[in-house]
Amino acid sequence: MRIFDKNYKTIWEDYSSGLLELKVIDQTKLPFSFEIKSISSYQSMVAAIKEMVVRGAPLIGIAGAYAMCLAMQTIAQNRGDQQAIFQIAEEVSSARPTAVNLKWAVDKVIANIGTDRSASENFTSALEITREICESELKACRLIGEHGGALIEELSLKKNSETVNILTHCNAGWLATLDYGTALAPIYAAAQKGINLHVWVDETRPRNQGSKLTAFELLHEHIPHTVIVDNLGGHLMQHGLVDMVIVGSDRTTACCDVCNKVGTYLKALAAHDNGVPFYAALPTSSIDTSICDGINQIEIEERASEEVIYFDGEEDGRIRAVRAVPIGSKILNYGFDVTPARLVTSLITENGVFDASESGIKQALNAV
Amino acid sequence: MRIFDKNYKTIWEDYSSGLLELKVIDQTKLPFSFEIKSISSYQSMVAAIKEMVVRGAPLIGIAGAYAMCLAMQTIAQNRGDQQAIFQIAEEVSSARPTAVNLKWAVDKVIANIGTDRSASENFTSALEITREICESELKACRLIGEHGGALIEELSLKKNSETVNILTHCNAGWLATLDYGTALAPIYAAAQKGINLHVWVDETRPRNQGSKLTAFELLHEHIPHTVIVDNLGGHLMQHGLVDMVIVGSDRTTACCDVCNKVGTYLKALAAHDNGVPFYAALPTSSIDTSICDGINQIEIEERASEEVIYFDGEEDGRIRAVRAVPIGSKILNYGFDVTPARLVTSLITENGVFDASESGIKQALNAV
Repeated sequence: MRIFDKNYKTIWEDYSSGLLELKVIDQTKLPFSFEIKSISSYQSMVAAIKEMVVRGAPLIGIAGAYAMCLAMQTIAQNRGDQQAIFQIAEEVSSARPTAVNLKWAVDKVIANIGTDRSASENFTSALEITREICESELKACRLIGEHGGALIEELSLKKNSETVNILTHCNAGWLATLDYGTALAPIYAAAQKGINLHVWVDETRPRNQGSKLTAFELLHEHIPHTVIVDNLGGHLMQHGLVDMVIVGSDRTTACCDVCNKVGTYLKALAAHDNGVPFYAALPTSSIDTSICDGINQIEIEERASEEVIYFDGEEDGRIRAVRAVPIGSKILNYGFDVTPARLVTSLITENGVFDASESGIKQALNAV
Repeated sequence: MRIFDKNYKTIWEDYSSGLLELKVIDQTKLPFSFEIKSISSYQSMVAAIKEMVVRGAPLIGIAGAYAMCLAMQTIAQNRGDQQAIFQIAEEVSSARPTAVNLKWAVDKVIANIGTDRSASENFTSALEITREICESELKACRLIGEHGGALIEELSLKKNSETVNILTHCNAGWLATLDYGTALAPIYAAAQKGINLHVWVDETRPRNQGSKLTAFELLHEHIPHTVIVDNLGGHLMQHGLVDMVIVGSDRTTACCDVCNKVGTYLKALAAHDNGVPFYAALPTSSIDTSICDGINQIEIEERASEEVIYFDGEEDGRIRAVRAVPIGSKILNYGFDVTPARLVTSLITENGVFDASESGIKQALNAV
């Protein structure tokens, strides 16, 4: 998608040095400055994942796969011991312990490495697999956009082309994926068709991915949007100012409970109370069929107090971390919550739109 | 209540200059620094109300009454036209639109001003009325504490003296009133009785009155508490970590709809969804019997975008305003929302605890 009217992906290959290097958008600097970072070793990629230079479950998976390519390239160049790759795979997989896509993508690359082949053959094979992962992620996001975009189009017709107001929480946009996004993909698809729409962007405390990343994305795609505090959505829904809610999902259970950024559940309650449709947009790869009851079976990640205590923002061109919580007060910081299936209208997946139910999940998984 | 183990009220009279001046705790500086501000003209008091140096519906009422006293004192001193007081009353009343207490208190003072009497007599009468308002607000808060404290005690007995977890949104503590508070008064009363309790403090974006003021109050009263982002309360309720919610109310309708800080409605929905009792604590003076349907009849104050764009916090001893929203993104900032009566368990008033219904409101008003 666009930044300053030029098309980008979140990560791309670069061979200007003669060898494979990766370029990534440094997401820790957004929206304050737009910087591209070169990554030429797996160690740098691990650091980039850890420091959230790249973030978002789908993007982390791709970054992990590329980290494996870089490692294999180095082994080939230095005629190093190919056995080292298995240790490196462990290291890459654990860069962010909560992102399931990371281990999934690294495992996929490793499965195709054979120590009976040369390191350079293995590098080629790793790169092939990684590009396949990229292609399939890209396709899933594009299809989520198509299916979800059709829902927005329907609403637009019902409203006689009056503005469709869509609320979203956190960032499930193109910056969290390779391109297009999940929750934002339908919005981009509908906007491209010329549908009149407007997005309410939840700030998304404590890390402000809404105001920092979603607003940045929409601004550069020239899509009308308004940033609001997480507290405001209920009031807007009471007053008919929200036509639909679309959020992403980090993990969706077999019974269709949706685990997403903390605060999603509160928006789902308000949507339900006001008859506003509530959609979760997700690739079927994030469905976890091993569990049903999301509230009791998903362990929610407790994150550092500092995320709540300090607020990162810009003053006079410098990024500063200021604190508002008095010294001495305790903090509790869970990163996600679970929205029970009964509050979800439908799932938007690459395979189509499905009921938010056990049978809907089965259909989504079998629709290929 | 206490700051650094010394007792304060939020506003008090001072005659050290020979004339009436008011001293107020500058709440825009909390929790970073504890500063007392002198106010000697009605214009300064209006500015203090607008800039939220003093805030909280009950305190605003008192501040408005004192603004009238200061205006009358100036007229008396300058032998000005007493008719001017009616214009000033309009100006003071409209310093903040949502809370009824402001207009109510100003009207009460005005009703006792007679242009057939001297300005100095009118000043004396205005001061008398203002002190009566102070006395009655103080008494109301103390009684809200007693009645609400009994509810906490009941829960504590049911839990065999295990910790009672109470969630509150925004600041309806002693800093929002003359002393004791409304939503926090029951907590202070229960803590004083030695009841084992813990408070979940919603950060309360965009102005962070929870992390800045409620946490500050509880810290200085030595009450166990944890600051959380506004997004977390739903998750905590799903997991049985909240025994009750107590919030304040800026305005309560004849049908018992509760208008309070934006985001209150979302917590009420989560409480209802999880069977957690949800209480609104308020003096009966904040009941507006002229309206029933709070959602459609209460005009919600739209506040400046800057409150959302900039986050005020402290870095290295300096208060800084940092921004996280990209330049070019629009903002919408409503200060309050309305929780429909059906989501409220009971009202805690100075006259006792009443059903959250039209008949409950009548009982509360007639219970004197």
